[in-house]
Amino acid sequence: MTGILSVAARGEREPLAVASETTGAELEEIVARAARASRVLAEATRADRARLLRALADALESDADAIVAAADEETALGAPRLTGELARSSNQLRLFAEVLEDGGYLSATIDHANPAAVPVAVPDLRRMLVPIGPVAVFSASNFPLACSVPGGDTASALAAGNSVVVKVHSGHPATSLACAASLRRGAELAGFPADIVSLVFGTAAGVQLVKHPSIKAASFTGSVPGGRALFDIAAARPEPIPFFGELGSINAFVITGAAIAERGDELAAGLAASFTLGLGQFCTKPGLVLVPAGADDFIASLTRAAAGVAPGTMLNPRIRGGWAASIDALSQAEAVTTLLAGLGTGEGLAGVSLYSMPASAVLERGADSPAFEECFGPSTLVVTYADEEELTAVLALVPGSLTGTVHATEAEGAPGTLASRAVALLSERCGRVLWNQYPTGVAVTWAQQHGGPYPATTSSASTSVGAASILRFLRAVAWQNAPAALLPVELRDDNPTGVPQRVDGRLS
Amino acid sequence: MTGILSVAARGEREPLAVASETTGAELEEIVARAARASRVLAEATRADRARLLRALADALESDADAIVAAADEETALGAPRLTGELARSSNQLRLFAEVLEDGGYLSATIDHANPAAVPVAVPDLRRMLVPIGPVAVFSASNFPLACSVPGGDTASALAAGNSVVVKVHSGHPATSLACAASLRRGAELAGFPADIVSLVFGTAAGVQLVKHPSIKAASFTGSVPGGRALFDIAAARPEPIPFFGELGSINAFVITGAAIAERGDELAAGLAASFTLGLGQFCTKPGLVLVPAGADDFIASLTRAAAGVAPGTMLNPRIRGGWAASIDALSQAEAVTTLLAGLGTGEGLAGVSLYSMPASAVLERGADSPAFEECFGPSTLVVTYADEEELTAVLALVPGSLTGTVHATEAEGAPGTLASRAVALLSERCGRVLWNQYPTGVAVTWAQQHGGPYPATTSSASTSVGAASILRFLRAVAWQNAPAALLPVELRDDNPTGVPQRVDGRLS
Repeated sequence: MTGILSVAARGEREPLAVASETTGAELEEIVARAARASRVLAEATRADRARLLRALADALESDADAIVAAADEETALGAPRLTGELARSSNQLRLFAEVLEDGGYLSATIDHANPAAVPVAVPDLRRMLVPIGPVAVFSASNFPLACSVPGGDTASALAAGNSVVVKVHSGHPATSLACAASLRRGAELAGFPADIVSLVFGTAAGVQLVKHPSIKAASFTGSVPGGRALFDIAAARPEPIPFFGELGSINAFVITGAAIAERGDELAAGLAASFTLGLGQFCTKPGLVLVPAGADDFIASLTRAAAGVAPGTMLNPRIRGGWAASIDALSQAEAVTTLLAGLGTGEGLAGVSLYSMPASAVLERGADSPAFEECFGPSTLVVTYADEEELTAVLALVPGSLTGTVHATEAEGAPGTLASRAVALLSERCGRVLWNQYPTGVAVTWAQQHGGPYPATTSSASTSVGAASILRFLRAVAWQNAPAALLPVELRDDNPTGVPQRVDGRLS
Repeated sequence: MTGILSVAARGEREPLAVASETTGAELEEIVARAARASRVLAEATRADRARLLRALADALESDADAIVAAADEETALGAPRLTGELARSSNQLRLFAEVLEDGGYLSATIDHANPAAVPVAVPDLRRMLVPIGPVAVFSASNFPLACSVPGGDTASALAAGNSVVVKVHSGHPATSLACAASLRRGAELAGFPADIVSLVFGTAAGVQLVKHPSIKAASFTGSVPGGRALFDIAAARPEPIPFFGELGSINAFVITGAAIAERGDELAAGLAASFTLGLGQFCTKPGLVLVPAGADDFIASLTRAAAGVAPGTMLNPRIRGGWAASIDALSQAEAVTTLLAGLGTGEGLAGVSLYSMPASAVLERGADSPAFEECFGPSTLVVTYADEEELTAVLALVPGSLTGTVHATEAEGAPGTLASRAVALLSERCGRVLWNQYPTGVAVTWAQQHGGPYPATTSSASTSVGAASILRFLRAVAWQNAPAALLPVELRDDNPTGVPQRVDGRLS
């Protein structure tokens, strides 16, 4: 009964109206259906859930043209990038099918009874992880496919055995509708209820969703203020729920003098490509580049490379406005030099911007320095360090981040070097530490870690990308002295589905 | 600079004054030392940390007489029980030494680079869990050894590679001092700083501790109001930290008619012993016993068995007062029959109390029924169910609990029975589901799960007892394309310490 959503669209286009905000009564009905669907998922075998995930991937692929067209209309990201994103969505659904078939994620653990144990007898105990219940997913503005309706949060929550209710991002409602239709059709083809995935629209519905007693966990990708507000709501519930928020990240990027001497131009080109990829609208964008003082040729080379990147249309006017305000503040901060002032705020286009300041000026203001403020868009800040002491002092102030990167020579990849100390410092405050590569682009694999200490995320133990992201949506149960017929198959001695089991302390 | 702590002591004794409340300045110094000690622990090899844990166990054992004497003086639990508790403390330190030597808890995962991957090349990624940083431990009133200074939280946090600052429980400060002295001496003997374990005293210091930026996680065992207040503080920090609180648990206990027919008297005796163990001051005490209507002989037998348990001194006057108030309220609630009114509040002693009410009366008030209020002390409530429908309706209302128990016959241990449906319902709302055993007593093993949905705990994915409790105090880091010389040994291809590794998707 509320207004039509306004939809951010490319350039000067009119917003696209596709959905009303979800009312309170509608949300109740959606969550009730999701709770029933969650029970079906939880009771399904892992093999059936794996089949479901593959059916969802197939459905997305068969609807790819329509989905990519809708997403391009709403986000201006272009068909090549969006086609890649959709491939990533289906690939990660298929990865989770493998995760399910493997079954190691359950941490199935069996201790047989030991009546002779000292000081007291030990009973038969069998522990594993089970689905947590319906999950609220807040989708991201910057990845309308891979971090939205058919994204990693949805895939991992479904794999874990929970239904998903997605709070649609206002930037791409038509894309979200197209994706949900595809997933729901895929679910039914696989014999599951369509309601394993459903959508709600509007900020108020999002808040109501996080507060709903049937929702048992939530995930979020977005800004620090928005994510923190939802985290606070989740924590303040009568029954608090885990809230996996990915909020903001500065992504320090350290370059040694030896690396510049060895391959300065190549590095400048690579870094310029990385911080401008997707017009800098990546949560892993390198936002703080640490370069030795005196590396003027490198900075000139970086400036030239960045100047060669064409201006473009950002995801939506709100994001462009936020970026313009943040680079405006940065450019006016003390000791900051503007190396490249992109087209900035005019005409709906954003052009690449580049700034520099000496580490001494950063250290003067400490943790409050503007160097540690994320600027979400095609810009970065070069900070020049006079010596190792300045470098490590700055690194010690870097806020919790998704990534930290070190570029050095092969010879510096050994204990005792400045580069090794930078790696160690970054591993204390980042979820992923890269060596001689670029942080933008997050592979969906078993060993990926996309997370980090606050404010990168609200849960530094978890990842939102990769196989381990399934662990966010599980809880633990142990059965004591239970008859085999009442145990989950994964905890039976005969282990009919062949999952990894730890039996009496030993992994089998 | 604040007052002397008053210490609850046995019976009519005067409180024992052993420590002042920790001042703000003292706490700053304690946390700074703990942060330095935490770094030493994090940088130690797993083998050295295992050696440390065994040295701590040895130190506790060599000081056992003094520790048990102090604890008996403060808690009136008696030397036999306290000796058992101390054995449990050293045993769990030794279990975590095994957990460290095994190394599976790290979830070491290696994906080798795959330049040919579609849609994009995959880099070399290696992920594992690393120490989270200094941990605040709030010790429990009811286990002055096994859930306090030398308890499971301390053992698992140290094993994970973090220092521990314990907020001492006001009920046993002298015991806490004795334990800390023992552990600190043991640490130094093993070549580690004494400050891997330190203490703070007083409520204000506890709050300051949870707020301290250097503290990276907290654990708590105690009441719902106290635990929730600290949870809220942890969540409201500028940088929120994980708070693992174990707050309250009703521990439903279902008995089938067939079980009563088969072994009613044995069951009555076992249940009476379980709910009165430690004068009912166990978080796993069965507090809601579901019995078929008409099982009058069983209830009479239970009443007789419970009446035979001698009154005793509860842990401290505050706990006795809380219990007296809660059974007073229960006994006056509608439809509640008092089967046994213990000595209750008089003369400092607590005697066993037993109540009953029909399931229909519970269902009339739903989730607000007094049947779902925990009474921490030597009492329980028998709820009589007319049929399976009533039983399952009551079970569906049971709040999140640490345990749920079903007693049935062997023939009922099969799908399709009432007992099997009770097991399924309990597994949705409990962390541990028992079959034909008693929930009091929590074995410290690999497969133990001591946790459960809120309010049993604030984190249903975690356990505070058993090998998996180490996972609470870790965060995740991935290294991308890092030289072998800069990787943790557990992530190297040559795997020199032989930890379980998942390599390219397969567990080795």
